Amino acid sequence: MSISADGYVAGPNQSEDDPLGVGGRALHEWHLGPTKDHPANRQVISDMMDGIGATIMGRNMFGPVRGPWPDQSWTGWWGDDPPYHHPVFVLTHHPRASIAMRGGTTFHFAGDGIEAALERAFDAAAGGDVRLAGGAATIQQYLRAGLIDEMHLAIVPILLGGGERLFDHLDGGPTGYECVELVSSLSVTHARFARSAR
Amino acid sequence: MSISADGYVAGPNQSEDDPLGVGGRALHEWHLGPTKDHPANRQVISDMMDGIGATIMGRNMFGPVRGPWPDQSWTGWWGDDPPYHHPVFVLTHHPRASIAMRGGTTFHFAGDGIEAALERAFDAAAGGDVRLAGGAATIQQYLRAGLIDEMHLAIVPILLGGGERLFDHLDGGPTGYECVELVSSLSVTHARFARSAR
Repeated sequence: MSISADGYVAGPNQSEDDPLGVGGRALHEWHLGPTKDHPANRQVISDMMDGIGATIMGRNMFGPVRGPWPDQSWTGWWGDDPPYHHPVFVLTHHPRASIAMRGGTTFHFAGDGIEAALERAFDAAAGGDVRLAGGAATIQQYLRAGLIDEMHLAIVPILLGGGERLFDHLDGGPTGYECVELVSSLSVTHARFARSAR
Repeated sequence: MSISADGYVAGPNQSEDDPLGVGGRALHEWHLGPTKDHPANRQVISDMMDGIGATIMGRNMFGPVRGPWPDQSWTGWWGDDPPYHHPVFVLTHHPRASIAMRGGTTFHFAGDGIEAALERAFDAAAGGDVRLAGGAATIQQYLRAGLIDEMHLAIVPILLGGGERLFDHLDGGPTGYECVELVSSLSVTHARFARSAR
């Protein structure tokens, strides 16, 4: 997750036109803009993506549609060939048929709760890791359930001043994580947290 | 300010015995523990302290005493020779005579509001800079008043899970700052923010 120095993973006033909120796009410059080829950033992206066999995301990350799906037209923010190239499980209470996209990404719609979605994702990953892509509310659900083994934070030195906080609604959590890696490029600091030995 | 990756400058349950709250001491290991001599940390400490002619702090940072001063016995957390070595203005509604400590630190008690305290501090600094030492509530007051030119955040890769947030109660702020320096040592990332050109 890319997170601002004041703790936000999206800016204020998120909308369909501005899905990352005001200023939120700047959180992702490190892997989209000119500094994406800095060795530290390349290494982190490669560590993050290698070995991932499936992804889980919340419905708000998949798209702006709320409530029952009016039709099958919305297929995500990412165009015909989303950058996942593996099964992606979208958490939603509203059933919908799976969508096979180009490039190996298939969107499945998981309505049986976060634990069932995680099981399905691990099955689909076939020995690979499962990545939780976001957004904040989804990550908080999994943190509260104690189901996250590792977190990569890309701490971006900007101040958004408002928006969606990653570490919120956690009732004193997350606890039990320690930083096992800290590297900086010119524009971002990557901190990897893993569960502490118990 | 030392700040955790989840945005706290003190842990939960602050008390006289535990003024930094549970886990809060770990925020300061970078300048107190074995890594304090890492070149990046030494440079930051030197940049931070050089040229400072006066410090302002909130009353809660000065000590745990609340309400009128019962006597003159409390003289801060730092022993006979506090690490400031210049005038320190403590914001409080309760008047008290100044205290000259060893090593050049004098505590003054400023009861006329944050702007008057800032003026007194600049006068006392005699051409030097004025450092705002904390805590969070004090920094928020000065941020809301638009009186902070530069912020150094020492982002420590720990998760405290609760406590006192630095960027809280700001009503959409802070705005107008940009990161002008980002350096990491082994255990902390230093981000320096300055007012954006307008």
